[in-house]
Amino acid sequence: MLEKFFSKDARNFRPSAIRAFAKWINDPNVISFAGGSPNPETFPAERFAEIAARVLRERRHISLQYGPTRGLPRLCDFVAARCAVQSNEVILTTGSQQALDLIAHTLLDAGDVVAVELPTYIGGTSSFYARSAKLVGVQQDDDGIVPESLAEVARENRPKLLYVIPNFQNPSGRLMSQRRRDQVLEIAREHDFLIIEDDPYGELVYVGGADTTSIKSRDHDGRVLYLGTFSKILAPGVRCGWIAGPQEPVEKFEIAKQAADLCSGMLDQSIIDEYCNSGELPAQIERVRVFYRQKRAVMLDALEQHFSGRAQWTPADGGLFTFLTFNDDIDTAARVERAVANGVAYVPGAPFFVDGSGRNTMRLTFAKEPDERLREGVERLARVFGS
Amino acid sequence: MLEKFFSKDARNFRPSAIRAFAKWINDPNVISFAGGSPNPETFPAERFAEIAARVLRERRHISLQYGPTRGLPRLCDFVAARCAVQSNEVILTTGSQQALDLIAHTLLDAGDVVAVELPTYIGGTSSFYARSAKLVGVQQDDDGIVPESLAEVARENRPKLLYVIPNFQNPSGRLMSQRRRDQVLEIAREHDFLIIEDDPYGELVYVGGADTTSIKSRDHDGRVLYLGTFSKILAPGVRCGWIAGPQEPVEKFEIAKQAADLCSGMLDQSIIDEYCNSGELPAQIERVRVFYRQKRAVMLDALEQHFSGRAQWTPADGGLFTFLTFNDDIDTAARVERAVANGVAYVPGAPFFVDGSGRNTMRLTFAKEPDERLREGVERLARVFGS
Repeated sequence: MLEKFFSKDARNFRPSAIRAFAKWINDPNVISFAGGSPNPETFPAERFAEIAARVLRERRHISLQYGPTRGLPRLCDFVAARCAVQSNEVILTTGSQQALDLIAHTLLDAGDVVAVELPTYIGGTSSFYARSAKLVGVQQDDDGIVPESLAEVARENRPKLLYVIPNFQNPSGRLMSQRRRDQVLEIAREHDFLIIEDDPYGELVYVGGADTTSIKSRDHDGRVLYLGTFSKILAPGVRCGWIAGPQEPVEKFEIAKQAADLCSGMLDQSIIDEYCNSGELPAQIERVRVFYRQKRAVMLDALEQHFSGRAQWTPADGGLFTFLTFNDDIDTAARVERAVANGVAYVPGAPFFVDGSGRNTMRLTFAKEPDERLREGVERLARVFGS
Repeated sequence: MLEKFFSKDARNFRPSAIRAFAKWINDPNVISFAGGSPNPETFPAERFAEIAARVLRERRHISLQYGPTRGLPRLCDFVAARCAVQSNEVILTTGSQQALDLIAHTLLDAGDVVAVELPTYIGGTSSFYARSAKLVGVQQDDDGIVPESLAEVARENRPKLLYVIPNFQNPSGRLMSQRRRDQVLEIAREHDFLIIEDDPYGELVYVGGADTTSIKSRDHDGRVLYLGTFSKILAPGVRCGWIAGPQEPVEKFEIAKQAADLCSGMLDQSIIDEYCNSGELPAQIERVRVFYRQKRAVMLDALEQHFSGRAQWTPADGGLFTFLTFNDDIDTAARVERAVANGVAYVPGAPFFVDGSGRNTMRLTFAKEPDERLREGVERLARVFGS
């Protein structure tokens, strides 16, 4: 009955196609490779408890009060230093999902084209669809975006933005090579579009020699909006991400954020600020790496054992995911129910492809399950995708 | 240089006209009646410290993890019960500013008309302007919205939404009479628009007999979107507001929120949930009332002493503000600098009026300063606005 009141954007809202799979994540009978959440064992809960109690007791006028829209100044400085930008080039956001939303609101009109990787992150596409943008897919190979494909999309579709996750992409787990990053930036300059460089996983590196140097670091003409987050190296329940970009759009994002939520949680920011400024972050990041490195090894080993010759998968040299590709005739979505009945869950790949391809792919996370269940889960999966 | 990339909405973004006055709020030499923030002395910091430490230590998999977009289920239930609606008619938001933003995104196209009170809350108008909506003012008197003015605006401008703050409005401090609420709803039905009923101050009542019964409570055809928040009765630094409304738009708001920030802070929600469910909220609300009731009395007394015959002001029977109206020839904005030089700050009223009127008004909050400074501040103000 109220439908007639909905905006044009609202008619383009797309509910997350993968949230539907979340319901199995907490069923103990189902081994879940489905979710995309970090593992709570990596959260620095004890230190956060100490810090939270302290900032609440001693600094209630900051931790419990409205704060600056840009974010807690000392934490902005910390983030700016990590990103090698000036403090006035940073805005903290309510998770990096808000960063995507502020950018989409500030830069996109209905019908504007956003180029995205095939596959890409659902949270990114949902923010763009919510502004009635048109999404066009760019081919990816093991080195990341294929430059020829990007150039073609740029010529034919004249995108305003490219959305890219160069480090251990969600969902593909791939690391874009440094040469490709140069090429991507070059094409952006030639065809005059901006780049959203989303980097939630850059610190989660499990192998030597993985070069995660950002596109932003070589951005000399102010074309890159770099997104970071504390969600994977600390915890996502405290909502804190950021945008590092040229001053001019960052000022616009600040006005957009005034209207969006006035300020992000000040208790969350106070806790993270204390934690980071007491110098604990590097050791924490190392703990997180050790934790996932082991899980990744278990899953890759099990895949080798059960899927060798039956599928290809990405090496997951960082991040939380490996991405499997089967023969063309296998439709992974069609087997989800059978898999769950067999006690294992995954996310079919198709929703990550804006062009409707990828039906023979799936995303697996090794973040959640203990080692034994990782092995057992891959074995169950093999039964569902057996010959 | 990047301006050409900005969206049409971004060209309509309006930075808050009152945030500019915030810079004086923390200058100890300036007695501030300017800000709109609640007083940190009312925040239950000690209890929050205990609860935060506990939910972080014992429930990190909830308090530090991603959570449901709708909000922590038990807290949704608590809010639904308070609002006398079903749980599926509630969505928790990152403060009620996000509620305004989700509603604006879901319901407004460029050029759509929103009717707002004269004066009205800046955070509301900023969310509507950010969707390129057209704002039309409706007259207010001491009983709230003037029905004849609303009917005229409805006839001439065909609004899609009416934005209204019936309880102790920001900035006017006024309480809309129950009869007026009936009339407003009737006009909404006749002219088929929706009502955003924003109620941050409804619990902050300082006099007997103030009837704050919501418009929502008599909404039989699903026309009212009711907004509430814990910001004034608990604390705003933990960002938690809500929308209670018909199921259909609430489902759309949920999809909009997936794209906006995935979920609100889970530590914030966990703390508030524990606090509310341990039954502590009623006593806290009573403490907050006692605290502000005293300050209000001091300010009203000082106004009586210094401004009697020189200005009118609203009784502030609840909320955080009284609103002063001077003779037509006084421009309050023109005297801000002189006031600050004399050690007192206020917010000129004009930015709260979408029609450019209200130059002879100002908003004063009694929330921030200790009693002695409240008296002294009004005295300083009287010197600036003296005969």
